[in-house]
Amino acid sequence: MLDFETILGNVRSRVPLVHNITNYVTVNDCANILLACGGSPIMSDDEGDVEDITAICGGLNINIGTLNRNTIPSMFLAGKRANALNHPVLLDPVGAGASKLRTETAAGLIEEVQFAVIRGNISEIKALAQGSGTTKGVDADEADRVNAANIDSVIAFAKSFAGKTGAVVAITGATDIVTDGKRTCVITNGDPIMSRITGSGCMLSAMTTAFVVANPDSIFEAVCTAVIAMGLCGEIACQRLGALDGNSTFRNYLIDAVYRLTGKQLKEGAKYEMR
Amino acid sequence: MLDFETILGNVRSRVPLVHNITNYVTVNDCANILLACGGSPIMSDDEGDVEDITAICGGLNINIGTLNRNTIPSMFLAGKRANALNHPVLLDPVGAGASKLRTETAAGLIEEVQFAVIRGNISEIKALAQGSGTTKGVDADEADRVNAANIDSVIAFAKSFAGKTGAVVAITGATDIVTDGKRTCVITNGDPIMSRITGSGCMLSAMTTAFVVANPDSIFEAVCTAVIAMGLCGEIACQRLGALDGNSTFRNYLIDAVYRLTGKQLKEGAKYEMR
Amino acid sequence: MLDFETILGNVRSRVPLVHNITNYVTVNDCANILLACGGSPIMSDDEGDVEDITAICGGLNINIGTLNRNTIPSMFLAGKRANALNHPVLLDPVGAGASKLRTETAAGLIEEVQFAVIRGNISEIKALAQGSGTTKGVDADEADRVNAANIDSVIAFAKSFAGKTGAVVAITGATDIVTDGKRTCVITNGDPIMSRITGSGCMLSAMTTAFVVANPDSIFEAVCTAVIAMGLCGEIACQRLGALDGNSTFRNYLIDAVYRLTGKQLKEGAKYEMR
Repeated sequence: MLDFETILGNVRSRVPLVHNITNYVTVNDCANILLACGGSPIMSDDEGDVEDITAICGGLNINIGTLNRNTIPSMFLAGKRANALNHPVLLDPVGAGASKLRTETAAGLIEEVQFAVIRGNISEIKALAQGSGTTKGVDADEADRVNAANIDSVIAFAKSFAGKTGAVVAITGATDIVTDGKRTCVITNGDPIMSRITGSGCMLSAMTTAFVVANPDSIFEAVCTAVIAMGLCGEIACQRLGALDGNSTFRNYLIDAVYRLTGKQLKEGAKYEMR
Repeated sequence: MLDFETILGNVRSRVPLVHNITNYVTVNDCANILLACGGSPIMSDDEGDVEDITAICGGLNINIGTLNRNTIPSMFLAGKRANALNHPVLLDPVGAGASKLRTETAAGLIEEVQFAVIRGNISEIKALAQGSGTTKGVDADEADRVNAANIDSVIAFAKSFAGKTGAVVAITGATDIVTDGKRTCVITNGDPIMSRITGSGCMLSAMTTAFVVANPDSIFEAVCTAVIAMGLCGEIACQRLGALDGNSTFRNYLIDAVYRLTGKQLKEGAKYEMR
Repeated sequence: MLDFETILGNVRSRVPLVHNITNYVTVNDCANILLACGGSPIMSDDEGDVEDITAICGGLNINIGTLNRNTIPSMFLAGKRANALNHPVLLDPVGAGASKLRTETAAGLIEEVQFAVIRGNISEIKALAQGSGTTKGVDADEADRVNAANIDSVIAFAKSFAGKTGAVVAITGATDIVTDGKRTCVITNGDPIMSRITGSGCMLSAMTTAFVVANPDSIFEAVCTAVIAMGLCGEIACQRLGALDGNSTFRNYLIDAVYRLTGKQLKEGAKYEMR
């Protein structure tokens, strides 16, 4: 059983400072969800700045959503510095499989940086594990979707990728799979409208980093809890929607729900199974 | 008559994937409005990434709002690649006329890339057509405003610019003019508060690209419908505002309205005239 | 006494155009709060663009929140051009003290550009004044917090920094201190939730620039009024929050409150003391 009260409580009381090298599309939402969950964000992506900044933080969130020639070297520099300082580093390989630059950058990062967590959709993780992929833009390919028929093989795949990378691997979608290579958590919280806003995944990665920083001795549990929290807050936000509300109001309610989230809500609303 | 049901229905059913090279000010709103209307956004602006990304998309939206030395070459590269692949490309020449770099970049793009659509305010389009302008920042100059007295000459100007560029030209403001050089649509949907949020124009450009991608055989009609949809959603959003609401809530309601928009609403609410 | 009606009225009637070289985290909020208060934003950060853009604006807001090798030279160029044109320039030294690059860039800017206003938290301003600091990320260090016991020495420090730089200095936090080196205004408007959204400080800096541009003959009063306005709008927004609302809805209500703000509200709600 996951001890939600303790894990969330640690985030709230320890106020983990998270360094984000992230895309400019969803960066504001990432900052606000970090503040909502109890963390504190700082964004910095210049080669001359990232080492100093990551040194004063508790962890690093690397998201390649709008990677470019200036920020790619910063990701490597900051990642290595965070490793040297024993800070947990998370990778969000946005669009891996959709372009050579994205696939190669993510693969290079995994080679040179030790990640505590790798979080992506199934197509992105497959692209990383297999060196190729059919990622359709930043969304998972239909053909890759996790379902009852393929879940056992997806879990086996995720475990093997976790073993290979030494990272907790989180493959998120309608069904989420989190594994450290031995234990696996299958999570079914969430709502389809989460795919109708930009940044559900990016926000989850940012928040997960905060959860991991605040719970250094239970990284697997921290990742599971962050994934459950995001899905549950999606459900809570969805229930608030009125007849005229759409995805923009949903985005606000989602962050609001994280802000108001309690251990009790997690305990009562979590839909997960340990395998 | 515009067949709103079909045009909007195509966007919803075909989920057009749109590559955006756009500014970092309104990029999140552009992504969310693309999702709201039924499309799917991807942002990528590095020279090493844009050709791969544009190849997997259905169309390209180029917005020069925060152009820079790194992204300008990417706009040319991606534009040419999209042309080669027969993907429609839209240009939003934000601030053309306000600086030499903006005017020259937009003019150069028009020279080297075949645009399916060019959308801007009257001052930006004048700056492009005449090689000079009096754009006041990113808003249209008062002296340029379209009104009853000058509308015939503005239409003639727009038609001539459409003829010269081979693009559907959309000049938007309180009164919108859309023309393919032969047919012209004059649209009066909208609300003044739309100019009190950032990104009304950028969001319209992003959404228009999705409409065009999803309706390849009726590009002029798709642009007209997108412009009407944006104005109508502005009206719907405005009607929802309470006494304490301002431009931030309006922005949310605007995107929400696009999310909830139906062909029936378009049919009943459209205010346009074909000339 | 501050003449709120006149100062806010000038912003609303003169529609100050503000050039922003700012971070990509909170840039959308900065644009929307500028529009909310009655100003007009333009963002431009390329070396080849900033001089033209700043020339057509009334003032310049420099925010180093996500500074990089491309935008740093632009800050110097635009700052000097604005100086030459007698446009007021504001500096927001985000994270000064948190990295060498931030501290040195801010210090270099103060040396080469004459600022009308410098606005930051106490840790950032200390880092600038003393050439070193203990800034924890982008938030003020606990040890630096302004309180009853240290306020006199903080005021003396702020006055001396204002004297040295020739700028109106605004040190903001739970208690805000604004000084031109002679007069000092101590402001206690605001609500703790303002620190639970990203961009409270950035938005205040953007808005302050607009207030200063619109009130060129009363810069000190304009800065005081902008700081009071932001705090008061934070209070108004907080009062609107329902049981399920969090920081995301708060952000919207904050900008909404600025949009709706009246001189009368300022007069009745301002909590300040001139010293």
